[in-house]
Amino acid sequence: MKFFEDIEIGTRTELGSYTFTAEDIKRFAERYDPQPFHTDEDAAKRSHFGGLVASGWHTASVFMKLQAQVILQRNLELSTTGVSPGFRNLRWLKPVYAGDTLRYSTAVTRKRELATRPQWGIVFNQVTAVNQHGEVALEIETSALFARRDASASSS
Amino acid sequence: MKFFEDIEIGTRTELGSYTFTAEDIKRFAERYDPQPFHTDEDAAKRSHFGGLVASGWHTASVFMKLQAQVILQRNLELSTTGVSPGFRNLRWLKPVYAGDTLRYSTAVTRKRELATRPQWGIVFNQVTAVNQHGEVALEIETSALFARRDASASSS
Repeated sequence: MKFFEDIEIGTRTELGSYTFTAEDIKRFAERYDPQPFHTDEDAAKRSHFGGLVASGWHTASVFMKLQAQVILQRNLELSTTGVSPGFRNLRWLKPVYAGDTLRYSTAVTRKRELATRPQWGIVFNQVTAVNQHGEVALEIETSALFARRDASASSS
Repeated sequence: MKFFEDIEIGTRTELGSYTFTAEDIKRFAERYDPQPFHTDEDAAKRSHFGGLVASGWHTASVFMKLQAQVILQRNLELSTTGVSPGFRNLRWLKPVYAGDTLRYSTAVTRKRELATRPQWGIVFNQVTAVNQHGEVALEIETSALFARRDASASSS
C-alpha cells in the first residue's frame, strides 16, 4: 500500500493519449457547452478559431477519464480514495481542434500534512496535456487526499 | 454593447438550476469519470459517500452549460468572445448526490487591463453552486476576456 509518506515529489505518470474527433467534440458541447465554435463546423470556421475546437471542459474531463483509469488500476496499491478537494489554476493554453491528439501526464509537485485531519495528507500534481505539435494545450494543478502511514500506525 | 469598462464589480447573475438524476450522473461518469461511486449505486452505498454522487467534472460542466446559455442569449450585448484563459481555485465543497439540485450564480469580483494586449481586459467572477439545503457545493473563480471601449474608440 502506498501512503502519503511514500509519494515522492517529481514522480511523473503518463496517463495516455486521446484524439478529439469532430463527432466527440460536438457530442460533449451539445450537452455542456453549446457555443457555436464547439458545435458547428461552419460557424467555427467563421469564428476567431477558424475551425471546430473542443470545449475546455471537455479536454479537462478527458484528463479525469484517463486519471480515473489509473486510479482504478492502482486501487489496491494506493491509499487515496480518489477524492479531491478541488484544483487550482486550470489553464487553456492552446485551442484543441478536431483531429488533435493530446498526451496527458501528471507529476507530483508538492505535498503537505493536514493540521486539522492528521490521518490524511494532501498531494499536489501538475497535469499537462501536450498536442501532436509538442505544444502544451492544457495545464491543471490538482490535489488529492492520501492516508498517512503514521496515523494508521499510531491507531493500531 | 457592453465593454470591459461597463462591467461593474459586485454584479451578480443567476445562471439557473440543474437537478442531477442518477441516470445523468452515470452517463457522464461512464464516459469521463468511471469511479464506482459515480457509476454504480451499490458500490456507491458501500463507499464513504454512502450513495451515488456526481463527478466533480460533471458539476463543473453543468456550470459551463448554464453559462453558455447566458453567453448565447447576450451574444449581441456583450463584447466577450466567450473565450477564457482558464480557471482558478475550483472547490468541491459538498458531495452532489443523485436527486440533488444545484442553483448556480456568478458574481464579478475584480477586473484588470492586460498590459500586453491593450484592446482586451480580463474580468474575474466567483461562481457558486448551492444545493437544496442551502449548502455551497461548488465554487470556481473564472475569468473571461472583454473588449475595451478605449481601444475601439482609439482605433476608429
